[in-house]
Order: sequence, then C-alpha cells, then structure tokens
Amino acid sequence: MHPPLVLSFGDPAGIGPELAVAAHRLAGQPFCVAGGQQLLAAAAARAGIALDIIAIADPAETAAAFARGLPVLEGPDAQYRPSEPDADGARAALASLNMAVELARSGLAAGVVTGPVAKSAIAAIAPGFIGQTEFCADACGVVRRDAVMLLAGPQLKVVPLTVHCPLAEVPGRITQELILHRTRIVDAAMRADFGMAQPRIAITGLNPHAGEDGYMGREEIATIAPAIARLQAEGIAATGPHPADTLFAPRQRLTYDVAIAMYHDQALAPLKALDFDAGVNMTLGLPIVRTSPDHGTAFGIAGTGAAHPGALCAAIRMAAEVAERRQARA
Amino acid sequence: MHPPLVLSFGDPAGIGPELAVAAHRLAGQPFCVAGGQQLLAAAAARAGIALDIIAIADPAETAAAFARGLPVLEGPDAQYRPSEPDADGARAALASLNMAVELARSGLAAGVVTGPVAKSAIAAIAPGFIGQTEFCADACGVVRRDAVMLLAGPQLKVVPLTVHCPLAEVPGRITQELILHRTRIVDAAMRADFGMAQPRIAITGLNPHAGEDGYMGREEIATIAPAIARLQAEGIAATGPHPADTLFAPRQRLTYDVAIAMYHDQALAPLKALDFDAGVNMTLGLPIVRTSPDHGTAFGIAGTGAAHPGALCAAIRMAAEVAERRQARA
Repeated sequence: MHPPLVLSFGDPAGIGPELAVAAHRLAGQPFCVAGGQQLLAAAAARAGIALDIIAIADPAETAAAFARGLPVLEGPDAQYRPSEPDADGARAALASLNMAVELARSGLAAGVVTGPVAKSAIAAIAPGFIGQTEFCADACGVVRRDAVMLLAGPQLKVVPLTVHCPLAEVPGRITQELILHRTRIVDAAMRADFGMAQPRIAITGLNPHAGEDGYMGREEIATIAPAIARLQAEGIAATGPHPADTLFAPRQRLTYDVAIAMYHDQALAPLKALDFDAGVNMTLGLPIVRTSPDHGTAFGIAGTGAAHPGALCAAIRMAAEVAERRQARA
Repeated sequence: MHPPLVLSFGDPAGIGPELAVAAHRLAGQPFCVAGGQQLLAAAAARAGIALDIIAIADPAETAAAFARGLPVLEGPDAQYRPSEPDADGARAALASLNMAVELARSGLAAGVVTGPVAKSAIAAIAPGFIGQTEFCADACGVVRRDAVMLLAGPQLKVVPLTVHCPLAEVPGRITQELILHRTRIVDAAMRADFGMAQPRIAITGLNPHAGEDGYMGREEIATIAPAIARLQAEGIAATGPHPADTLFAPRQRLTYDVAIAMYHDQALAPLKALDFDAGVNMTLGLPIVRTSPDHGTAFGIAGTGAAHPGALCAAIRMAAEVAERRQARA
C-alpha cells in the first residue's frame, strides 16, 4: 500500500477549503488534508455539499476513510470566514503547509498538493517567507535556485526562467548560467517524473521575433543561443531561441514536450489563455512531490461558489501520477 | 455597386501568391489582385488549383470576373520562384502594395488586403521602408504614430502599444501620452469600424501581476493607472491595469471587446496560442481600410502547399466588413 497524497488547505479565507471539499468527488484520486476539520466541515456546509469529514490520526488511514468522506488529519484548524483574511488564518495556513511537507519528507505521504495562500499575509507572521515553492525547497534542504517552477496544463507545459520581478529587470537576469542550470533540471525531471525518454525542450527568445538576428535586441545572440548550443552538446534536446509569439500556437506545440520562457507573462499568458481552469504549478528538482493549482486565494469570490475546482483536481492527479512513477523506480 | 477589395500579392517568393489563389474559393468575398498575372497563374499551377486568371483593366470589373476566375489588374508582375527571394521580387511586391494603396486612396477600391513582404528586402531597394503599416500611413498622409496595429482573431482583439523594439526598451517607451493617444484611436475605430456603441477596452499592466501594488515594478502606479483614470474621465470604457497572465483566459475575454497590451509578445503570444490560423492585422486610424494576414512570408514553406489560407481569408472578410460599415455611414 503506497502512502497517500496530502493537501494543505491554504488560506482559510480563500478558495482553498471549498475546493478541497469539491475535489473529494471530482479529483478521481484519494487524498487527505493536513488539518482543518472544523474549517472544511464549514466550507462543505456553506457550499451545500453533503460530505462527512473523517478525522484520522495517521495518513495510512486515508484509503479506507476516503470512501466514506474526506479524511482530515488531526492538526491545525481555523474558523471559516471566507473573504476575511486575518493573521490567525495565515498562521493556520502556514501550519497546514508545514505539516503536509513534513509528512512527505518523512515518507508518510506520497506527495504534497498545496492550497493557495496569501504570500504577504504569511510573510507578516513569518518573516522571510517568499512563497510556497521556496518554503518547500528550504524544508527539503534544497537551495532555492534548484527548485524550478513548472506550469502545466492539458495543452502546454512551460517553465518561466524569471518570475516575480519587474519587467525592466528581466534582461539583466537572463544569463547563460541560469539557462543551463534550469534546463538541466527540467530535462532530468521530465525523464524521471514524466517518463520521457528524450524530452524535447523549446526555449524562447527574450525579444520580439527572438531578436530577428540582432535587429531587435542582442540577448539571443549573446546569451540564449550559446547556452542552447552547450545544452545540445550535452545531449539535451533543446531548441531555440524561438519567437515567443508563435511558439505556443497549436501546430508548434506539437514540436516540443516543454517550453522554457524568459519571464512570467511570456510563459503564463499563453498557458492561461489555453488552460485556465486546469493549470498546475509543480516544483521540479525537489526530493518530495509538490504540486499546486495555478491560481491564488481569490479572496474576492471565496464562499460564493464561483471558484472552479479544475486546477486543484488537475494538481492532485499530476501529483499522483508523478508519485507513482517515483515509487515504481524506487 | 460598391468598389471591390484589392489584394497586393506580397513577396513573390513567399506564401502570398499561393494564398491569394487559394482564397478565391475560400474567402467568401470577391476581390481583385494588384498585378501579378503571370505570378498568380504559376502559383495556381504549382498548387494544382484549376483557376483562370482573368486580366482586368479596371477594379470595377471585379464582381463580374470573380465568378469566372481570379480578377487580376494589369500591373507589376514577377517570376514565380518560391523560397528564392531576390531584389526583383521585392521591387514587384512594393509596386503591388503601392498600386493597391493608391486604388484605395482614390476610392476605386473599398480597401486593401496586403500580402506578406520581407521588410529587410524592401528596405534594401527602398531606403526608409519600415513596414507596410508605416507605408500605408505615409501614403495616406497620416503621421505614423496615428496608425495603430490591431491584431484580431475569432477569440481576441488586441493592440500592442510597442511592437518591434528590444524588450529592454519597452519600459522606457510606455508613457501616459502613448497610452492616451492609442487608446483614443482604438476607441474611435471600434465605434466606427466595428459598430460598437461603447467599446470595453481592457489595458494590461507591464509587470507580472500588474506590479501587485508596486511590489514588482511601479509603472502601473506611475503611468498606466493615471492614464486609465484620465481615459475614464473622457467617457472611454477603459479598465486596468490588468495582470496580463489572466486577462486572456476564456472567462476574462468575455469582459472586454479589445485589449491593449504593453508589448509585442504580451499581445501576440496569447493571440497566436488561441487563433493561429485566423489572425488578422488591421491598421486603425487610416482613411483607407487596410488588413493583412498576421503571418510573414514563410519563405521556408513557400510552394510546398503547407501554408494555411485561413488568416488571409479572415483578413479579406474583415476588410469587407469594415468597408461595408464605412460605406453605410458615408
């Protein structure tokens, strides 16, 4: 019997609790939640979902309990006050995240699916908190630069090389070393976690039309193309630099398994245009399996029933798939 | 009887000629071509399309001739050598473009649909040539900054505020004045050319998450938001700055009629992800109607039959629709 997946419930005032409840029927995979018995019962009641909360003391009870209701581990809990975030909620969210990660690290859980949190709210009570990706890296003793964010939908997998920095800083952050380092991690993860024998990795340019031979920017010539040549010399099936405007078009998407983009919107705007309700954020390069729905807390619609559980369900399924592949190799 | 649409054939070595031939049956709108009798006959033969080239001397003959074949005006012509661009071809492409634009300016054509050209090839024989959009502006006596590029597909209309400049230069080019000026032109064109009573215009941010209140860049606070406030005060239904990663998602696209993006890939990557084979480039703010398929010469596949006529057909239909609306108002 393999260990189960464990969810953290995310910010209690966000859409995490109601989505966890909705995912019980929809995800098609058993899981337990790291704390939140009272919170999740209230979210189910508010959503009008008839679902028993099954208190469990050990993740190993998940499979048996899941048939009867939602298995929830004894642990942190919170009042359900949708759309009203506060410091107590941020503390509970962090405690649930921490519990879930520790269960995965110890092998009692097969992987972690993290509910959405408000970064700034947690940073206010836990100085140094930047995001769940970095939290997971730190907890696993992995240096943060080795934890790589993959965004994946049914139609596209894409890795942004830079994420939450001003656009004006992006050109300065794109170095050969960054491209080489991240692409190697992506290549290894596609093999190990997604079972690809030779992943095809398409790398974008930074400038319009990938610079058009230096006519609109020289980063492709000076930095990106040499990095790609070096990756190819290592046996990695990297191509590019590709113009980012056409790389995500339907026929082009058939020519690669994963794209690497230079910055946040270059990666995420096409992904969300295509796969909005099913986008998964997975952290590559960690010893534990960690996925997340690719959306935020959505405080504005929490408790209204407007939130869509598609991305959380996709995150659960991807975590299960990757965990199974890792277990088969272990 | 309204005047007809006229096509320029584009670079003779590109996919323009074969698409013009294919569009005869597929566009669902009559049109004539500005020169290229020999070129188009050869392209039809190569594509295995049985289509008579009907030589005409006057655009007014188009409607009658179109039922029998492809009406082609006496004018510039070229050898058909797909995938082998040369200076003679560039000269012919420029002459066809010039002829088409002059017919529209004089009122003998209802609008111009321009085939794809190689900018650098034309610049080599006609110094100062930047692109067909600027050529049309100059020919119409419109200052270039007033000629605004709209990209339109079945699922999305979007205007990039900056286009062919290095990404590193984008932040410096985004000014309140630019946003105000372009948005006013977009608003007027949506009313006049697309029959919208009160166009809803969604404006993106520059930075990830539209800067998240200054946390990742301040251009939204310093420049974009104040410009939007001023547009709203003028009665324009502008909103934003919106995070660009979510603005193009399916449900978000229902909330606006046209988006204005800060730079090339921010606008074009989601558009082409969604509408690759049907993207139209229309120039707003001109006295003539001008559209174009949103793709290049594709020298690499010219003559192979791999090129898709969807975008050219969509460009012809959009030109016809806009021309009809302008004629109805005239």
